Amino acid sequence: MSFDRLINNIKQKQNPTVAGLDPKLDYIPGYIKENSYANFGKTLEGAAEALFEFNKGLIDALCDIVPAVKPQAAYYEMYGWQGVRILERTISYAKQKGMFVITDGKRNDIGTTMEAYAKAHLGTTDIEGQDISAFGADALTVNGYLGTDGIKPLLEICQKDDKGIFVLVKTSNPSSGELQDRTLDDGLTVYRTMGNMCESWGAQTTGETDYSGVGAVVGATYPEQLGELRKTLPHTFFLVPGYGAQGGGAKDVAPAFDENGSGAIINSSRGIMCAWKKEGCDPTDYAQAARREAIRMRDEIISFIGEIR
Amino acid sequence: MSFDRLINNIKQKQNPTVAGLDPKLDYIPGYIKENSYANFGKTLEGAAEALFEFNKGLIDALCDIVPAVKPQAAYYEMYGWQGVRILERTISYAKQKGMFVITDGKRNDIGTTMEAYAKAHLGTTDIEGQDISAFGADALTVNGYLGTDGIKPLLEICQKDDKGIFVLVKTSNPSSGELQDRTLDDGLTVYRTMGNMCESWGAQTTGETDYSGVGAVVGATYPEQLGELRKTLPHTFFLVPGYGAQGGGAKDVAPAFDENGSGAIINSSRGIMCAWKKEGCDPTDYAQAARREAIRMRDEIISFIGEIR
Repeated sequence: MSFDRLINNIKQKQNPTVAGLDPKLDYIPGYIKENSYANFGKTLEGAAEALFEFNKGLIDALCDIVPAVKPQAAYYEMYGWQGVRILERTISYAKQKGMFVITDGKRNDIGTTMEAYAKAHLGTTDIEGQDISAFGADALTVNGYLGTDGIKPLLEICQKDDKGIFVLVKTSNPSSGELQDRTLDDGLTVYRTMGNMCESWGAQTTGETDYSGVGAVVGATYPEQLGELRKTLPHTFFLVPGYGAQGGGAKDVAPAFDENGSGAIINSSRGIMCAWKKEGCDPTDYAQAARREAIRMRDEIISFIGEIR
Repeated sequence: MSFDRLINNIKQKQNPTVAGLDPKLDYIPGYIKENSYANFGKTLEGAAEALFEFNKGLIDALCDIVPAVKPQAAYYEMYGWQGVRILERTISYAKQKGMFVITDGKRNDIGTTMEAYAKAHLGTTDIEGQDISAFGADALTVNGYLGTDGIKPLLEICQKDDKGIFVLVKTSNPSSGELQDRTLDDGLTVYRTMGNMCESWGAQTTGETDYSGVGAVVGATYPEQLGELRKTLPHTFFLVPGYGAQGGGAKDVAPAFDENGSGAIINSSRGIMCAWKKEGCDPTDYAQAARREAIRMRDEIISFIGEIR
């Protein structure tokens, strides 16, 4: 269990960013939707098939320069099981193209139920002696509110197939401080306490780099806390949302990286998916617009952190 | 947005319990599996169709005496999109039979992403002006670690269709105290703080009873905290896991109820689903064994709390 494959992918492409695949119908060019509705109707299936075409175009345009994608489960579930089927196809297609896939599901539960989520999203499901992959992502975001019982079942399943998890530590939203910034009786904040739990859970994992297989989600909108956590959590790799649409810039995310330019991957979802709208280019050029934005984002971040070693 | 429909269902049946539908292949009688494999193969689909047959039998046997079911999303996701399709069919079938359906998904995210989960599981998805129901449960369990930004989108969507949510407050697992029992700088525990947030989120909802549409998950394995929270959260309805297999008994769950015998619903999953194994009855009698266990559980709890008014 480690993030070695992700870290190697980042180094090789010299690009510490991940493209969020949170496809809403609003983001998809009209010609893709019309085509899908013509084949499948204005139904959950028709919408879901349009999402897949959109995703496929993005993955094709990004896979040689962006190391990872992060599909957000909510946007697939919104289109029913038909949407969830497209989540599986999106994961599979991105992996075929060499991308590292992080399913953003923020799953959480205990014991055998958490084990079921781990099997679903990262491992395999046993059906009468055959191990079948259900969704097969490389990493999953999880919520640690339930403590160690909610994390341990993941560690066991991730160990076998060299997968990783990202635990919510300090989220990017305005109200994240309501609980996460509160101070506990030992003087540490809730988010620092959760961060320390990540270090301790990660200590049971092994990999080639200094980073464990237990990462943390830390928002770009809180650069001070990003820097504090980078210093205090030396073995915890960061997934950083909040760049772009939520207001974080390259300067804000710079504290997430270590002295080698490693230790973090920065997510952009709407910035990349909706680049064609912002550019005002021809809708059929949406995937290349996404690529241009991905290159701009990469170059902007690299200009702050230098070469990734 | 309220729990009026659930509370009315409980009163009418004089039964404050919910049957957890967490179907694992191990729990399903062999004849159901063999039949499904013969039709669909030893595949995710074959397994999923067996789960549905099993669920259908349980729902048929329980619907006149048990007010609600709680499918646990993890056990459906474990069987891929084919399993998630069965989640949708299970929800739909239980609703047809008059049961209140709580999807146990412990979902959490922020802003438009949380809105997507709310639309997926409780509301409807807009496809070119048509509102289509994706999963259509009556209530959803959620995790409040992200604060108000993660709850508000649910309130807006629940308001429209009179749905409810249950926020994790004090979970039933042994390690729940690692974070939830810690004391904050104002002297309150994390779980009390989360409970108070439920009261405040619920204040924006309306219904006929004193209980709001924002409930709390509080484990049967912590009877003292159950009692403490019942006293301090007068408008928060409790969903109580941990009865039976996890060790909680009827005496342990009694503090969850108010002086009218209302205010809580107690979950049993394995106890009901696996009653046929415990009884050692003929596997074809699994649904009636579940019914016998559901009646035993109901009578045991009612003997502690009296008539539900």
